[in-house]
Amino acid sequence: MTAHSAITAFAREAGSLSVGGIPVDRLAERVGSTPFFAYDRGLLTRRIELLRATLPSGIDLSYAVKANPMPAVVQHLSGLVDSFDVASALEMRTALDTPMPANRVSFAGPGKTSAELTQAVAAGVTIEMESENEADRVAAIGERLGIRPRVAIRVNPDFQVKGSGMRLGGGPQQFGIDSERVPTVLKDLAAADLDVLGFHVFAGSQNLRAESICEAQRRTVELALRLAADAPGPIRYLNLGGGFGIPYHDKDEPLDLGAVAANLAELLDGAIRPGLPDARVVIELGRYIVGECGVYVTRIVDRKQSRGKTFLVVDGGLHHQLAASGNFGQVIRRNYPLAIANRIDQDAEETATVVGCLCTPLDLLGNDVSLPRAEIGDLVVLFQAGAYGLTASPTAFLSHPAPAEVLV
Amino acid sequence: MTAHSAITAFAREAGSLSVGGIPVDRLAERVGSTPFFAYDRGLLTRRIELLRATLPSGIDLSYAVKANPMPAVVQHLSGLVDSFDVASALEMRTALDTPMPANRVSFAGPGKTSAELTQAVAAGVTIEMESENEADRVAAIGERLGIRPRVAIRVNPDFQVKGSGMRLGGGPQQFGIDSERVPTVLKDLAAADLDVLGFHVFAGSQNLRAESICEAQRRTVELALRLAADAPGPIRYLNLGGGFGIPYHDKDEPLDLGAVAANLAELLDGAIRPGLPDARVVIELGRYIVGECGVYVTRIVDRKQSRGKTFLVVDGGLHHQLAASGNFGQVIRRNYPLAIANRIDQDAEETATVVGCLCTPLDLLGNDVSLPRAEIGDLVVLFQAGAYGLTASPTAFLSHPAPAEVLV
Repeated sequence: MTAHSAITAFAREAGSLSVGGIPVDRLAERVGSTPFFAYDRGLLTRRIELLRATLPSGIDLSYAVKANPMPAVVQHLSGLVDSFDVASALEMRTALDTPMPANRVSFAGPGKTSAELTQAVAAGVTIEMESENEADRVAAIGERLGIRPRVAIRVNPDFQVKGSGMRLGGGPQQFGIDSERVPTVLKDLAAADLDVLGFHVFAGSQNLRAESICEAQRRTVELALRLAADAPGPIRYLNLGGGFGIPYHDKDEPLDLGAVAANLAELLDGAIRPGLPDARVVIELGRYIVGECGVYVTRIVDRKQSRGKTFLVVDGGLHHQLAASGNFGQVIRRNYPLAIANRIDQDAEETATVVGCLCTPLDLLGNDVSLPRAEIGDLVVLFQAGAYGLTASPTAFLSHPAPAEVLV
Repeated sequence: MTAHSAITAFAREAGSLSVGGIPVDRLAERVGSTPFFAYDRGLLTRRIELLRATLPSGIDLSYAVKANPMPAVVQHLSGLVDSFDVASALEMRTALDTPMPANRVSFAGPGKTSAELTQAVAAGVTIEMESENEADRVAAIGERLGIRPRVAIRVNPDFQVKGSGMRLGGGPQQFGIDSERVPTVLKDLAAADLDVLGFHVFAGSQNLRAESICEAQRRTVELALRLAADAPGPIRYLNLGGGFGIPYHDKDEPLDLGAVAANLAELLDGAIRPGLPDARVVIELGRYIVGECGVYVTRIVDRKQSRGKTFLVVDGGLHHQLAASGNFGQVIRRNYPLAIANRIDQDAEETATVVGCLCTPLDLLGNDVSLPRAEIGDLVVLFQAGAYGLTASPTAFLSHPAPAEVLV
């Protein structure tokens, strides 16, 4: 088997892949049912250590809870990152249940209801305002509650970054306030009883090209310096977004984190510190922190031949790991890395297609994969499942039981 | 607004679209929260009446519960259809909770676990066996429980039907037993203590072309007649599948149900009755029964301009109606029909883009739609949401509350 870096990141023990030091076949017995998601606590810690060691010390690290909102994961990360970003009231509750202080939690999202905004103002988190209407509602809520809301402006930048799995900015969009409108909005906000901390600019996600991330960061800093001129006071918060990608497929080249770090150091010293001396500078990452630290484990329930092709039918499927089936935002379906956990040391000796248990041909987890000969009862592991796995999948599809999640 | 047939199928009352005789704005107050799914009981009944009036009387109608497993919907349909098809243990439980007798419930799916098969044997439902290994497991379970399992063979046909939204058959696949293997399997089964009722052949889904459905039915009947020669006894069950599509987009032409019915009548009289006189002949439909009877209702929480484009941001999104965002099995995203419920009689006067509340540009529900001028608080209705809506969507994405479902 060609060993994808996602596979070799996990340890092996007695012929089995292991997660958190426990062989996956034993872990399956501990969990008591398949399929399940397992996240490796040690890999999570090491990922943050890598980021801390590589990024300049003036950069704060924020975890985007939406990537993996499992409470145990969020609790673990609360001791490792500087802040959390949340996208809903429940994510906010999960974040506030950790030791992270409320003033280190930010709340972003284009369709915040007034109920959510009220909860956010009461909590004292930073509301990343996505529109002028939202600013008006936040001010009214603050007045009613007698609390001065902490806010930042989410800016829809006037540039677009290439090479991103998901492009934002440059044109009309639902996110943020168009950068050219921001000076006017800042003047209006000066009159409102809002604590305007600064700006958030997010230019894309799942980007593997360091040079385009660097360009986005340079242009974001230029934009922030320009916009700061119209701010009612000093800028104390600058969220540069993130967008660091992880390699899902064989041909994906991992992101050159060192190049991104060098660019950030240059921007910090050359532009941000001189121009925005009071700003907490934040890189917000979700997928890059948790994506490679988790696996999806599912058991083979049938092995069959059909017209010359070998199928391994598992008890999981796209209802738990939609992205691996190529049905969530992808244009072309490509295999995610996978392995047979209990045969991790065995050589590939056949080509098999791994399919889920659902009544739909969309439920394809691995097409024509080189694998050791796998039998019914064996455990298939799908890698790169730590981010946007369980919560980004249609778990109720065909009414199968929900999978367990464990942090090991 | 160009009135898509899905929109005009629903009644109007006092300037509002209504579901089950209740204006949607009042219904939203009754439900107590948005977003929600609403299914129209009267439309469901009329849909079955249409099928009964059009299809020949010798055809049994089976409802594929996976299309919409809401218990109230399944209860309602239990008095209207002849049988249910289920795809998981929970769907089976939902079906068995209705007055439908167990021997009118079939259980299909390529990855049935031994636990699920045991439940199915104990219940006395018909197990549509997808592989030789499954047949062995079912026989062993029957022996252990002292129950003779009722089974049918799901056949992977040797032909493929064109024009289907989802093609099955013709090549290697995870579903069923290859038709050329069936004679051998039937001989093996004759020795096992199994009540072999017949065959199930399913050649595709979401097909709008009557001629290709007719061709699939003709070839299925030919195949069944051929395979029956090797059966241990008379064939008592022939499930011809379904695959009847519904028009999701403006350019979709509705299926010519009359043409399908005429073909079925010809097949019944000319081939099935003479060749398989004991067979209960089943057409299995999910989407065609429920798809057009349901809507997804979501409230506008923001209205904003960005670089010349008008965005209506709603409190729902792709986490509840993934297919409408074009992210589930579609190659090209096209708008699903939508309307402003409380302005249903108003003329279109602007072009607006309807987006969900999620932090992703994928969360697009209607791109550049001609609509009356809609305001914050108005209710957006997405049509064709009765099938594969809630259960086929990633409801936990970004941890927003689950939507309610009502049958009205």
